[in-house]
This record gives sequence, C-alpha cells and structure tokens, in this order.
Amino acid sequence: MTDMTMIEAAARRLEGHARRTPLLSSPFLDEIAGRRVFVKAECLQHTGSFKFRGAWSAVSALDPETRRRGVIAYSSGNHAQGVALAARQHGVPAVIVMPADAPRLKIDNTRALGAEVVLYDRATEDRDAIGNALAEERGLTLIRPYDEPLVIAGQASVGLEIAEQAADEGISRADVIVCCGGGGLTSGVALALEARAPGLRVRTAEPAGFDDVALSLAAGEVIRNPSASGSICDAIVTPEPGQITFPILQRLCGPGLVVTDDEALEAVALAFLRLKLVLEPGGAVALASALFRRDRIEGEAVIVVASGGNVDPDTFTAALTRFLD
Amino acid sequence: MTDMTMIEAAARRLEGHARRTPLLSSPFLDEIAGRRVFVKAECLQHTGSFKFRGAWSAVSALDPETRRRGVIAYSSGNHAQGVALAARQHGVPAVIVMPADAPRLKIDNTRALGAEVVLYDRATEDRDAIGNALAEERGLTLIRPYDEPLVIAGQASVGLEIAEQAADEGISRADVIVCCGGGGLTSGVALALEARAPGLRVRTAEPAGFDDVALSLAAGEVIRNPSASGSICDAIVTPEPGQITFPILQRLCGPGLVVTDDEALEAVALAFLRLKLVLEPGGAVALASALFRRDRIEGEAVIVVASGGNVDPDTFTAALTRFLD
Repeated sequence: MTDMTMIEAAARRLEGHARRTPLLSSPFLDEIAGRRVFVKAECLQHTGSFKFRGAWSAVSALDPETRRRGVIAYSSGNHAQGVALAARQHGVPAVIVMPADAPRLKIDNTRALGAEVVLYDRATEDRDAIGNALAEERGLTLIRPYDEPLVIAGQASVGLEIAEQAADEGISRADVIVCCGGGGLTSGVALALEARAPGLRVRTAEPAGFDDVALSLAAGEVIRNPSASGSICDAIVTPEPGQITFPILQRLCGPGLVVTDDEALEAVALAFLRLKLVLEPGGAVALASALFRRDRIEGEAVIVVASGGNVDPDTFTAALTRFLD
Repeated sequence: MTDMTMIEAAARRLEGHARRTPLLSSPFLDEIAGRRVFVKAECLQHTGSFKFRGAWSAVSALDPETRRRGVIAYSSGNHAQGVALAARQHGVPAVIVMPADAPRLKIDNTRALGAEVVLYDRATEDRDAIGNALAEERGLTLIRPYDEPLVIAGQASVGLEIAEQAADEGISRADVIVCCGGGGLTSGVALALEARAPGLRVRTAEPAGFDDVALSLAAGEVIRNPSASGSICDAIVTPEPGQITFPILQRLCGPGLVVTDDEALEAVALAFLRLKLVLEPGGAVALASALFRRDRIEGEAVIVVASGGNVDPDTFTAALTRFLD
C-alpha cells in the first residue's frame, strides 16, 4: 500500500524528471468563485498531464532486468502518453493498447513518443485478452493507470507540491478539488496532504452522468456509472472507483462535486482567457466546480488541480466560441 | 541608466509579487527546430504578459507621496494591464490612455483591473497632449513602456530567471530570442545575461514589415518602420527602437530575426498543441523564429521568451483552424 515512505521515495525518483508545475491565479476567477482560486497547472507537465508522474514512478521502480523487457499499458490517452515517454526516457519498449475511437491526437502523440500502439474495438474485442497475450509473449510489465501503489505514489508528488505552494500563499485551510477518474491522482494527493497539510481537504470533481466516485462516496460503497462513454471529459471517465483507491478516497475526501459538460467547457474557456492555459474538459472539472459550485465549497480560498490539456482543437475552439464574446 | 545594482534592487522589490515563470519544452518542438527549445512562459505572468514586472518595478520605486497621486501610461494593451494591476496592488489610481481601436479584451481587462481608461483616435487626436494635460491636472507620474530605466530593470528579472533556469538545464551557450517592440524586455534581459550568463546571447524577434529593430541593428542607426499599424502582432509594433534601449541592444544583441504573421500564427497553434500555453501572435514571434529560422540560430539549444498571451478568441481560433488538422 502507498504510504509516505513510498511517496517520498517516488518524489526523489521524479526529481529532475517531472516538472514542478506552477500554482496560478487570476483576480477575474476569484470574482466568479467568490473566494481566492489557485490553479495547480498540471497541464504543463510533460506529455500535457499529471500521468507522467505516476508512469515515471512505476517504470523507474522496476528492477533493471524486468524493465529492459518493456512495459504495457491500457489507456485512452493521457496514461498512454505518460507511460510512452517514461519508457522512452528509460530506453525501454512500451506497448499501449488503446480503443480505436480514442482522440486521434492522443493516438498520434503516443506513437510519436516511441510507443507501439495496438488498437482494439471497444464493442467487439476483449482488451485484457489482447494485452495479456502480448505481455506474456514478450515479458512486458503491466503499468496500471490508477490501481497500482507505485502509480499513486507518483501522483502524490502533486500533493507534496501543493502543500508547499499553499504554505507559500499563506493558506492552511482550504478545499483541494481534484479531477477524478479512477482515483489515482486524487488518492495520491489526499495521502500527501494528510501528512503534510492536514488543514487541506481533498474533494473529487466529475462530470454529470459519470459521477461514480461522488455516488460511491455518498453511498459508502462502490457504485458503477450507468454508461461507459459519452462525456466530453473522456480523460476521467471510468466505470467505477478503483479497488485500491476507493478506501483512501472514502477515508480522506469530502463529498464529491459534479459539474455538467457545459460547465467544464466554460471552465476551459475561462482558463484560456484568464490563465493562458490550455485545458481539456476532463482536466477542467475541478476548476468548473470552484467557479460554479461555490455553495458546496468551504473556506476563503480553494485550490484546484488542472490535470490535463490534451484537447482536440475542435473541442477547444467550440468552447471559446460558445462562452467568450 | 539601468545597471546590475538597479536590476538586483528591482528583483528584490518584485519578490513575492511577480511570478517566477516556468521554462517549458516539448520533444515535438525540438524536432521542428532541429535543436532543444526552451520556452520561458511569461504569458503565465500576472495580467498575461511580462509587462507587470516593469510596471511593478517603476510603481514600487516611486516615493510614497508621489505614488499616492497616481500614475498614467500610454498603451495599446499589455503595458496598460501591467500598470493597472501594479497601481491597484499599491492602492493608488491609474489612468491609461489607449487607442480606441485597441483589442477590446485589453481595454476591458484594463478597466476591470481598476484603471480609468481614456480612449483617443489614433488618426485625429494627439495622445501626448491628452496625457500631458491629465498628468499635470492631477499630478500623475508617467510610466513609460520601455524607455525608462526602472521599467527596463523590472523586465531584466526575466533574464535573471533565465540565467538560473538555463544553468539548471545545463545550458551555458545558446541564443536567447526575445519578442521585441520598443526593446524594454530585450535590453533588460540582455543586461541581466551579460552579468549572469555571458554565454547566452540575446536575439530580437519581430514581425516582417515591422522589423525596425532588426533593420536598425543591421544599419547601426535607428531606422523607423514604414507603417505604424497593420500587423496581427499588435503587442510589439512600435515605430522605432527606444532611445535608451537601442544602444543596449546594439552593444549586446546578435542580428535580429524576422518572421511572417503566418509563422507567428503557426507558433501560436504549436504552443497550444505542444506546450498547453495560450500565446498572442506578438508573444509568439520568438518561438516562431526558433522553429522556422533554424539556419540563422547557433548552438545545440535555444531559449525563447513567450512574452504574452492576451489574444482575442477569434485570432486564436483562426490559428488553430489554419495550422492544426
């Protein structure tokens, strides 16, 4: 299980490899939110999302002989790019199994980062069967996207940085809102803050209709989403919270926050206008929660993690056209 | 005149007020440029451009009695917002004289930051007469955008940060390309690097047709642009290099680099795609030079300053539509 010893070891392995991303703000966003808003810009991380941290943590922890044979991952995009770059920087092969309908940009980027991409049809093919066969044949190590202690330990470095940056801003009590899919980032941040900044409470943010974590937190047991796809927040759509992550979320997080796809898109437009950041909708749900769910949040300041920026140009321009001007 | 004593004093006044912006990179940009490209993301500075640094430096250096009466600035946009915010944070009034045809976003932002905006018609009215009358009447202090030693000293803090960040990346020899209008940022960066990282050579970047600095550097004397407006790079269009800045540029800079408006727009699109940054065209000409003028640049790495991100949504959308997909 991920503990502070494992988190601190991951942070040391990440040093000089992951970026320490800035904590940004704008008086215009403060005004909308009715409190000070601080944005942890993980879209500026290598590969455009926090996923590089967990991937590097996991790949760098493998024994050299095992690592040499290569790694494999299942991902619709951001985890794929994170694992591809971490593997390339270690000089080892990566195979990424992706759904054929993943955003083209993410498939192209994963290939360009040196990975072998194996596409499958979500409707007719069994992803796990494809991956298991490849892994066995070549001796590849599976890097899970969130239900993996070493990955959680890597994502926790976001929490270590937030603890320091919040202290620099004089913030000791606040909600920290994290865009939540399977819960790897959220549980990592929650564990780091529990140890380093116990006055900061983590909240999950999800898109409406895919709010399995909010529902599960409210029910006290794992609840699945009714549908598996259909949100523009593709990066954070998972069927249910992870087996390893959910108990951590349950112990440490406040009630889950939920926003509509439109609110996520408006947050994308406002991040463009006020922060000069490119966010993908799934990476903007935490900011949307801070801006549009002010009555559900406590404290004079709020910290949000802007978890990724790998958005297709069409989606991005649609957000600007709809919500600016 | 601006020297290292003045630059170091400005950096101390800026501490805790200006952001230390990150130095970003992408393997995809390295491939286009044929060398490693590092991007100093000043679009993430308060008010969306480096101008806040110089404005804060100048406003914070005024004696309290003078400052209390307020400040005045002439600006089509980024300097306006920088002065407005610096004045507001000092609790003093700011009057900004802007051309009526400045981008609406910049006018709106300047007002929202608490400044009194006075619009004038570029064709029929005398900007200086309007400003002088107001300044005299109210006892306002003029904050010049670039030909002002305290402003240059503030912009120089970008150079101090680059010197440290380049050392962290192991870069001791490289061209440092700076988007250049009147030359306040460029001369400040050049002075800071001369003292702190003499292996880093500053180069100016400008849009074609408004390359007064490149022409002046080549001629060894000040040459004016034939026209005063008409580039999409509005932020960095000035009639000629400054009287204070030009001798500094002449002494310290390599030959000027020039890119087309289209190349600036393509750099805007690539910064969106690869860095998750929002740049305005005038803030992207340095990146465009690194990407599209590789034969004019020396060394295995290049550093560019992405100086601002205050772009209208329409211009941004047009860049994505034309150069991505």
